[in-house]
Amino acid sequence: MGKSAARLKDIAEKTGFSVNTVSLALRGSPRIPDETRRQISEAAEQLNYLPNQVAKSLVLKETKSIGLILTDITNPVLTAVAQAVELELSKRGYLTLFATSNSNPELERKMIESFRARRADGMLVFPCNHRKLDHIRQLRARNYPVVLLVGDPDAGVDAVCMDERAGAFKAVSHLLENGHRRVAIFDGSGQEGNREKIDGYKMALAAADVAFDDALVVAPNGHDVRSGYQAMEALAARDVGATAVICPTDSAALGALRYCVRHGIRVPQDMAIFGFDNTEFGEHAVTALSSVNYDIGAITKLAIDRVISLINSEGDLPQAEVTQVEPDLVIRESTAPLSAD
Amino acid sequence: MGKSAARLKDIAEKTGFSVNTVSLALRGSPRIPDETRRQISEAAEQLNYLPNQVAKSLVLKETKSIGLILTDITNPVLTAVAQAVELELSKRGYLTLFATSNSNPELERKMIESFRARRADGMLVFPCNHRKLDHIRQLRARNYPVVLLVGDPDAGVDAVCMDERAGAFKAVSHLLENGHRRVAIFDGSGQEGNREKIDGYKMALAAADVAFDDALVVAPNGHDVRSGYQAMEALAARDVGATAVICPTDSAALGALRYCVRHGIRVPQDMAIFGFDNTEFGEHAVTALSSVNYDIGAITKLAIDRVISLINSEGDLPQAEVTQVEPDLVIRESTAPLSAD
Repeated sequence: MGKSAARLKDIAEKTGFSVNTVSLALRGSPRIPDETRRQISEAAEQLNYLPNQVAKSLVLKETKSIGLILTDITNPVLTAVAQAVELELSKRGYLTLFATSNSNPELERKMIESFRARRADGMLVFPCNHRKLDHIRQLRARNYPVVLLVGDPDAGVDAVCMDERAGAFKAVSHLLENGHRRVAIFDGSGQEGNREKIDGYKMALAAADVAFDDALVVAPNGHDVRSGYQAMEALAARDVGATAVICPTDSAALGALRYCVRHGIRVPQDMAIFGFDNTEFGEHAVTALSSVNYDIGAITKLAIDRVISLINSEGDLPQAEVTQVEPDLVIRESTAPLSAD
Repeated sequence: MGKSAARLKDIAEKTGFSVNTVSLALRGSPRIPDETRRQISEAAEQLNYLPNQVAKSLVLKETKSIGLILTDITNPVLTAVAQAVELELSKRGYLTLFATSNSNPELERKMIESFRARRADGMLVFPCNHRKLDHIRQLRARNYPVVLLVGDPDAGVDAVCMDERAGAFKAVSHLLENGHRRVAIFDGSGQEGNREKIDGYKMALAAADVAFDDALVVAPNGHDVRSGYQAMEALAARDVGATAVICPTDSAALGALRYCVRHGIRVPQDMAIFGFDNTEFGEHAVTALSSVNYDIGAITKLAIDRVISLINSEGDLPQAEVTQVEPDLVIRESTAPLSAD
């Protein structure tokens, strides 16, 4: 309380308005003229002052809303997460504010600002880039509750997420145990620096004493069906003897499957295809996809527990915590032991 | 203004508090004790009084937020609409509040109340039931801006939507023109009373002088891939000579395709499959789906224009308007002229 009151006073001193006027202006009271509000907001900005924190400190009502920022809602697993988050938050009396960054870091920043300005009590974010998180760290430093849904144990930001590294490790190990030696990967880490899957891939190769070969790494244009089709086309054109491939999403795996079916490559006999995230469309594909399961229920619940506990914490936020949920494999028809023929 | 002021006075008279106290309480001011706020809210409720309208009438700031209620976010076309709505609203300075009803009318009502309570400036709704719209009509009668994204020209509620009747009519007509006489339909209207597609189907049959046959109508369990698979299984078991089927969604069509591929039914030679909504997964399926296109861009833009014009309208809302966008067909590989063999 003392800290916040001092801050209100700081703004009052800086602007010449009374503490009461400052407080009303920052709470958006309609009784304050626009120009006054503008001056006070500007001073608040300069003093690195968060209206939301004031609201909390003054024991005003919270807005009981939480922002959810997705990179791309046309990715079915993000969509399923959004649905689960919304249902779970609704049960707990929170409204979900919702935005997509379209994997655009600038838009992500804008959306976060917009949620802050509307005094969302906290945020759940799928960041565009799993490494460049300065803007999130800054929020956290100001005691704003943010929980990421993909994570990096060293980022200094709370996260609850699937352990993608472990998922890729398990999937590739499964293929290697089934006799595959030429396992390709569609690796999108070049664009966004999201290296969890390629790291897990390399770890699995090393553990099985199989040499890493650059020729088996294809950089796709994205995570969607079309990109998977094109990546499989590129892999086929290299003619490097791949007998299996691990894809970054089920969507990409569906594209790879489509390429194979249309070019007489039998799945799984000629090409084993492993998806990621275990979506409805993968499960019910013409050839049902093996996939790394995304435990939506567990991850959603843990993430919401975490953001609500941050919202309810007194004083400075506790140390950041990263919870990685280890995924299981779902083995279906698109993978099989390497056949002898 | 006069009307709203009178209403504030009504509440003041009923409760014994001053107009100023009533106004502060209804705006959620923290300076009003909870018990006072409760009494005033109760009186407001009894007098059929909308805080949001007061807020507008008193020239308070709008919240610049619009609620979007989907029935099921795992339906890819609803997802794509959600993304388009969110991007377009963001461009216009509005935040998207977001909820799914899970096709549950009770939850739909609850979500609408929740958005109202948080003073969303307006709402865009995919209603669970296209016919039972009393709760929406009541909102409208109180001058609350709501625009439906599926519509009924006679509902007395604003709507901007795909003309599903015309879409089904066109798709079935296309199949009939291509020699098919035994065209089946997966018809979900039994559960939800959403009869647009079956109406269009019957109209197309009538226009081509083909008799309607109940045996060609299968009621699926839902709109997802699994339901489409099961519906195709049921249709095959009937052995009624169907050579084509129109599905309520691309997801259902993917399920039908899967059933056919796994049971040696060639698509399109033995069975032509028509989807609905033209989604990514249909376009890039192993056999690319013919589908009725959902013009997301046009529908989203028109719906947002409409809800914002309602928000900005003075006094009572104008007469409800229903805009139906006639869809085009996208013909791909899953349909073909009936072959002679």
